[in-house]
Amino acid sequence: MSTAASNGNGNWQKPRVLVAGATGAVGSLVAELLDGHPHLELAAATSRDPDAIGKTLRDVYPEHRVDVPLSQVEDLDLGSFDAAVVAYPAGPAAPLVGRLRAADLVVVDSCGDFRFAEAKVYEQWYGRSHGEPDLIDEAVYGLPELRRGEIGTAKLIGNPGCYPTASILALAPLVEAGLVADVIIDAKSGVSGAGKRGGVAPGFVGTHDSMRPYGVPGHRHEPEIEEQLGALGYEGDLTFVPNLVPIDQGELVNVYVTPTRAIDPGELDALYEGAYSAEPFVEVASGLPSSRDVQRTNICRVHPMLDHDGSRIFIFATIDNLWKGGASQAIQNLNLMLGLPEDDGIPGGTAVASKTVDSLDRSPVSA
Amino acid sequence: MSTAASNGNGNWQKPRVLVAGATGAVGSLVAELLDGHPHLELAAATSRDPDAIGKTLRDVYPEHRVDVPLSQVEDLDLGSFDAAVVAYPAGPAAPLVGRLRAADLVVVDSCGDFRFAEAKVYEQWYGRSHGEPDLIDEAVYGLPELRRGEIGTAKLIGNPGCYPTASILALAPLVEAGLVADVIIDAKSGVSGAGKRGGVAPGFVGTHDSMRPYGVPGHRHEPEIEEQLGALGYEGDLTFVPNLVPIDQGELVNVYVTPTRAIDPGELDALYEGAYSAEPFVEVASGLPSSRDVQRTNICRVHPMLDHDGSRIFIFATIDNLWKGGASQAIQNLNLMLGLPEDDGIPGGTAVASKTVDSLDRSPVSA
Amino acid sequence: MSTAASNGNGNWQKPRVLVAGATGAVGSLVAELLDGHPHLELAAATSRDPDAIGKTLRDVYPEHRVDVPLSQVEDLDLGSFDAAVVAYPAGPAAPLVGRLRAADLVVVDSCGDFRFAEAKVYEQWYGRSHGEPDLIDEAVYGLPELRRGEIGTAKLIGNPGCYPTASILALAPLVEAGLVADVIIDAKSGVSGAGKRGGVAPGFVGTHDSMRPYGVPGHRHEPEIEEQLGALGYEGDLTFVPNLVPIDQGELVNVYVTPTRAIDPGELDALYEGAYSAEPFVEVASGLPSSRDVQRTNICRVHPMLDHDGSRIFIFATIDNLWKGGASQAIQNLNLMLGLPEDDGIPGGTAVASKTVDSLDRSPVSA
Amino acid sequence: MSTAASNGNGNWQKPRVLVAGATGAVGSLVAELLDGHPHLELAAATSRDPDAIGKTLRDVYPEHRVDVPLSQVEDLDLGSFDAAVVAYPAGPAAPLVGRLRAADLVVVDSCGDFRFAEAKVYEQWYGRSHGEPDLIDEAVYGLPELRRGEIGTAKLIGNPGCYPTASILALAPLVEAGLVADVIIDAKSGVSGAGKRGGVAPGFVGTHDSMRPYGVPGHRHEPEIEEQLGALGYEGDLTFVPNLVPIDQGELVNVYVTPTRAIDPGELDALYEGAYSAEPFVEVASGLPSSRDVQRTNICRVHPMLDHDGSRIFIFATIDNLWKGGASQAIQNLNLMLGLPEDDGIPGGTAVASKTVDSLDRSPVSA
Repeated sequence: MSTAASNGNGNWQKPRVLVAGATGAVGSLVAELLDGHPHLELAAATSRDPDAIGKTLRDVYPEHRVDVPLSQVEDLDLGSFDAAVVAYPAGPAAPLVGRLRAADLVVVDSCGDFRFAEAKVYEQWYGRSHGEPDLIDEAVYGLPELRRGEIGTAKLIGNPGCYPTASILALAPLVEAGLVADVIIDAKSGVSGAGKRGGVAPGFVGTHDSMRPYGVPGHRHEPEIEEQLGALGYEGDLTFVPNLVPIDQGELVNVYVTPTRAIDPGELDALYEGAYSAEPFVEVASGLPSSRDVQRTNICRVHPMLDHDGSRIFIFATIDNLWKGGASQAIQNLNLMLGLPEDDGIPGGTAVASKTVDSLDRSPVSA
Repeated sequence: MSTAASNGNGNWQKPRVLVAGATGAVGSLVAELLDGHPHLELAAATSRDPDAIGKTLRDVYPEHRVDVPLSQVEDLDLGSFDAAVVAYPAGPAAPLVGRLRAADLVVVDSCGDFRFAEAKVYEQWYGRSHGEPDLIDEAVYGLPELRRGEIGTAKLIGNPGCYPTASILALAPLVEAGLVADVIIDAKSGVSGAGKRGGVAPGFVGTHDSMRPYGVPGHRHEPEIEEQLGALGYEGDLTFVPNLVPIDQGELVNVYVTPTRAIDPGELDALYEGAYSAEPFVEVASGLPSSRDVQRTNICRVHPMLDHDGSRIFIFATIDNLWKGGASQAIQNLNLMLGLPEDDGIPGGTAVASKTVDSLDRSPVSA
Repeated sequence: MSTAASNGNGNWQKPRVLVAGATGAVGSLVAELLDGHPHLELAAATSRDPDAIGKTLRDVYPEHRVDVPLSQVEDLDLGSFDAAVVAYPAGPAAPLVGRLRAADLVVVDSCGDFRFAEAKVYEQWYGRSHGEPDLIDEAVYGLPELRRGEIGTAKLIGNPGCYPTASILALAPLVEAGLVADVIIDAKSGVSGAGKRGGVAPGFVGTHDSMRPYGVPGHRHEPEIEEQLGALGYEGDLTFVPNLVPIDQGELVNVYVTPTRAIDPGELDALYEGAYSAEPFVEVASGLPSSRDVQRTNICRVHPMLDHDGSRIFIFATIDNLWKGGASQAIQNLNLMLGLPEDDGIPGGTAVASKTVDSLDRSPVSA
Repeated sequence: MSTAASNGNGNWQKPRVLVAGATGAVGSLVAELLDGHPHLELAAATSRDPDAIGKTLRDVYPEHRVDVPLSQVEDLDLGSFDAAVVAYPAGPAAPLVGRLRAADLVVVDSCGDFRFAEAKVYEQWYGRSHGEPDLIDEAVYGLPELRRGEIGTAKLIGNPGCYPTASILALAPLVEAGLVADVIIDAKSGVSGAGKRGGVAPGFVGTHDSMRPYGVPGHRHEPEIEEQLGALGYEGDLTFVPNLVPIDQGELVNVYVTPTRAIDPGELDALYEGAYSAEPFVEVASGLPSSRDVQRTNICRVHPMLDHDGSRIFIFATIDNLWKGGASQAIQNLNLMLGLPEDDGIPGGTAVASKTVDSLDRSPVSA
């Protein structure tokens, strides 16, 4: 347990968490999850939208039943919090993360500012200089299934992008086994991936009853995937093409791997079962997954299979882009950083939500 | 606490609940909610679909992460359960309810078989004779906001239809105040109201990007609304027109009331605040509601207002047709029948789910 | 045939039509329809969007295969055109209409600026003073089914709003027969009714998988409906409530009429058959209509029926809000003003489009 | 012009066309297109659904305004027709095609029964023996852009599948240039591809707001694509994965090609411009296409491009699966077989429809 979570006389207290950017698509869901978290306190929520200040999150979005008033981050005493989730766009995020770290908060940054090991990669793909290059070294890439140990001791997390989350979980077992010679990723996302508010969010007309590729070539998530797979030992080519599909929340990643050697179905299944059978938030499916299977959960559902002549490996992976691809993964990271059970306060389907509670009842953290 | 919930030596045990018809739209959600319920046990789930027997609910619907195997109700020892939710279509439900009551289970029936006070009304609207007319008298109409006391001591609940749930909650405060001279209900439902499986469920093509009225005149929910409003004292005309809209889960009910006398906005607001401010699952909104505001919750969101010249009252009410209009309301009724907190095990937005847990932590039922 | 359509030596030439505001939802469709019109020439298309100038409409919207370059209206010689459709928002439209009329073009204005008989009604509901009050008297309300004769000799048409088109066609036979004592209209529109571009168009997220009433009380289409029904003799109350539904193009209007006297089904059907059997673009349906039945056509599909006890009349009417509720009705009006067959160049389903051509082949307008 | 189209004394008459299977998704659209065709007569329409017999197509589907009564094919004098489109499922189609060919009709078969050069390939992938193996040799694969000459003299056409239409048009220029070493096709289809009626059509619930791969590995369209590309000289591997996306009509095919040698963007563009600039129904787009760009048209919109390092070629192709992927391509083939202009009676966007007519006005076929 973080020292933040105990007061002077040994009693445990809920860590106080700040959500910065709580009127965005990811930030509002982080706030809702924290508001319902049994062992974390949503202590403040901020917005950069002047019209939102003074209202509650519930006033702005009735579906988020969170009564914390929205404030400006400039008006807060940052030292009064233990942790923060920053849900700003890339660019404005870094300086705020700098101030929060200076005030000794543990921080999860949900955008792209702290996902890369080197500022120059960031600068090349995001087209701007990095606001806090000195913090890059302490940032850990927050994919718990790959870096659980590092995350547990980290002070700053770069929360993964939605496409990288699904793509890396789809590929990691194969890459670690040295089985990938070449890879193509055809990814499809629901529209909430483009944000909740403002002029940038796609309109209904022109999006509904249509689909299209976008950001080709050169989507920002491509170097993120490359860097993480590289860290697992991959040195081959990677092609990444995202598509916009008329659903709200959901992401489907179809991965086409040319293997380095022949592999049979039993070996393939064993590889994924071995990698993920103990993971609370990865399901290895026995059939083709549907994005609806994991909607509004922190689960990544993965199905590996061989092409009919065995010459190619397919991996289909699906997540909710706002949950495992954003807000609930941020909570998963916060839990690890703060010494809580990894699934604490993360509903996953109704059932999982309540089961989480059961597990806490059995081994209460306050003991 | 029901005696069902304690064993011989005074220790409390979770009541064992059977879900009959767990592969339907309402039944599968009831099973999921029970599987995650902290103080009820999903003890068995049945299906009338031979292909489903022996599989788990998770096998059939991956989005429901429930590992209870599906069985045939004929193979079960009904006396081994404390309670049941029957999610059969109208007709086949009644005889099963008869057997379950004979085995002394408390029962929530989710279809239309036990919603009417008289068999002849049922027989007129449903076009068949009633399978268990002797049980009609003991059945209580399960709208907790109106009949909480009766439900608490009932052995058999007729769980309300989705349209009646929203319509009656929209109208009850006005009817009880004697303010309704005439009423028109234009109701719009998502497609899941027509069921999850089989030939009866509307296809995607022809439903998507379209909308239409249906079941006019003479939808079965009209006499249900009339009977319940009649019980509150309403004797005027009622027009009810349902429409199918291309969403999955959601229901919006627009109610047009000709008032018996002039009423001003302040009186109108006070009437609804008075009726619902203490209700855990009714929100009186300050603006026009959206069906998405309550999706996947047990909440009915209501907004009353006057037409610009004050001559007519509008009430807009929205629910999730599968939750408050079906499965989660069944749990709400079960909780009341079994002496549990009314909101126990009912997520309502993420936040509400966890708050429910907090309230239990403060006053544990097992003490 | 308008003199505009013949040159000096007696040969018929296609009238030259200008579309002002061709990058909006209605204007772009008007341009496409004119581009395919066999007897009208799309002579120019303008946009108020600086980024669009110099591009073709096809460049901006690939689905509109129209190669006319987009220009600024200020750069055109207005006297070189015979007719214009103005598809501007209310407000900016009126001054442009003034200039076009001064240059002696016949004009269809697609917004609200010329739909009302008196400037004061416009000013009350649109919240601004009227830009060309002197032109109001010459403007004719462009609902051909009610004002075909007036339209044929008009120089300026106020093209009806989408909701009024469906609502008035639904009600006209009853109102003309003096059968309406009171009326409630619950109207549902697809999202394209809110426009194609810019910050005002609803986003996908928050609109998809949701529905909601809006603009209550006091939508601008309400006084338009009242004025037109008043012209047919109606003096009673009118309630109008619009709802936003997650479809792209389509509108469904449910009309609830309290009749002035009892009416039987045969009389009701005869009334509508009598009113509409000769209309090329009104279908009296024998069953409940679906908005998809008329998508991408100029057709209004109407179904009148009695409530089960005969105390109330229902009329269900559906149109495509961008076609009969906008662009194709503008073409219908242009045809009437310019002496062309009313259905000329208006596809109505694939079949109707080609049949239109057949009718021209039989009696060529150039003879 | 086919002799079928002239009577004894030299006057041209419209060929009489039969549509068999007119209550299916493709057949009903074929019937509508023929009903509006200026130079073909929809002479009869049949259904295998007993409930439909005696009704008109308009009665069954109000959106198809076709008043031809539906009959049973057994009741027709097949010799009274000149041509037929068979829109049956694979299997039942072949014997009917046999009877129609025996009666000397020219036939377009819309299913998979006559798409393969050898019965054994059909039998392997469709899991049944072929009903009319002797007719396979005379059948021509009906992709006009590749086989226009053969189609013009054919008596029997196997109308291509929707996925093969888009995939082959995407790949043909590269394959013909010998540039393809390896190819992966990730294809996404709207739901109408699975049919309009009956138990096989996907339901709204479970399809809406979701997406998923299906039929992997081994979709029937894969060998069809392989055979056609093979005929163009391709001998490499091919991977084909289809996905179901919640739109009604539309198909997007993302093709990933490993080239046999380096190619620069200019060469790539020139290759596609050269192949398609004269094609009436293929658009080479300058940017990424959207499936909505071609909805309800016979157009295939294609965009080739290089990955950022030039190591891989992407081709994005989109069609309407029911139009170019089915019904309107059948009309295109009929036109070619019967000596009519290739685009006759095929609307393509409103504008294209009417332009088709213009071209006929300039060189009338009846002269």
